Amino acid sequence: MMKGRDEHQIRRLLDAAHRGMTQAFGTPERDRYQIVHQHEPHEMVIEDTGLGIERSRDIVVISIVSRERPQAQKLALYEALADELEAVGVPCNDLVVSLTTNNLADWSFGLGRAQFITGELETRPALTADNAS
Amino acid sequence: MMKGRDEHQIRRLLDAAHRGMTQAFGTPERDRYQIVHQHEPHEMVIEDTGLGIERSRDIVVISIVSRERPQAQKLALYEALADELEAVGVPCNDLVVSLTTNNLADWSFGLGRAQFITGELETRPALTADNAS
Amino acid sequence: MMKGRDEHQIRRLLDAAHRGMTQAFGTPERDRYQIVHQHEPHEMVIEDTGLGIERSRDIVVISIVSRERPQAQKLALYEALADELEAVGVPCNDLVVSLTTNNLADWSFGLGRAQFITGELETRPALTADNAS
Repeated sequence: MMKGRDEHQIRRLLDAAHRGMTQAFGTPERDRYQIVHQHEPHEMVIEDTGLGIERSRDIVVISIVSRERPQAQKLALYEALADELEAVGVPCNDLVVSLTTNNLADWSFGLGRAQFITGELETRPALTADNAS
Repeated sequence: MMKGRDEHQIRRLLDAAHRGMTQAFGTPERDRYQIVHQHEPHEMVIEDTGLGIERSRDIVVISIVSRERPQAQKLALYEALADELEAVGVPCNDLVVSLTTNNLADWSFGLGRAQFITGELETRPALTADNAS
Repeated sequence: MMKGRDEHQIRRLLDAAHRGMTQAFGTPERDRYQIVHQHEPHEMVIEDTGLGIERSRDIVVISIVSRERPQAQKLALYEALADELEAVGVPCNDLVVSLTTNNLADWSFGLGRAQFITGELETRPALTADNAS
């Protein structure tokens, strides 16, 4: 995001984004790993691929790394994020979301262990290429 | 990149990188989503995998998230970025590019919608594992 | 990471992370591309997915982009990073690691070339979907 929000506004925005994630993906409450980068306006050039969407200084770009999810969950995520962020003052024309997916073995949440592989974290059945997108 | 470029130089660099992208990938003019991170020199350690490429304080690391592209487009991208950035003062030994690919459902450009899925954005035929790399 | 470490401490941490990578992945000594982002405490919300792992201001989140690796190498990486970082003062409860994988054609280390494709860099046999994870 661009600089200008205070600590309290940033926390509300992070809480909103987290609600959107947990709603759409059904992830545990404490499955939360958020890092904010604040930029000068000239460090962000965010256009619209010709969609006619206007951007302002409120622009928020959310880059999410997650294991693969069904397409329906992804579409639900974009809606949930737009709703939740709108409620804390980010209009839906100022929200861009990009997902990158990885695998269960690609996460270590601490202690040098891959908790999805060790069985410490429950995993739902792996998605196949067919029901993922 | 490292700190030291002014606002005007940064804009020229972003314009150059965007020209490289549109040339190599054939993306629309306003398909442009760029974020700059400026660092202290001690925050960047960029070596060369033994290739004998010298780095300087002009070093630029470009990390691109894009849906999958044919290998030929990727190779064209590296050449185009090197040419365009050289023209604005970044020597080709100071350019590192890394691609990460995702899928059509992994993008929402605003309004809570996944525009590649809704049909609002035109998509070329999906790449198969065979013609992608 | 959060702000607070000095230049010397950051270098020791980067050296430790690099040792972990080379040990686990068997990569060349100069296969080293590291960028540090320092944050205010309110810019990082790092929880634990319910694992009961306590976090402190020493928290370090390492996001790695790499070509695909066998699962055994990934597990070895998390252990090696935890060991190496613990040795320089980052307790293993304050380390989160996330991998994102890409392909040989997704890297240009300079000069506008994709060195894994041109043959300038040696590559081990490509991983198949079966032995990768």
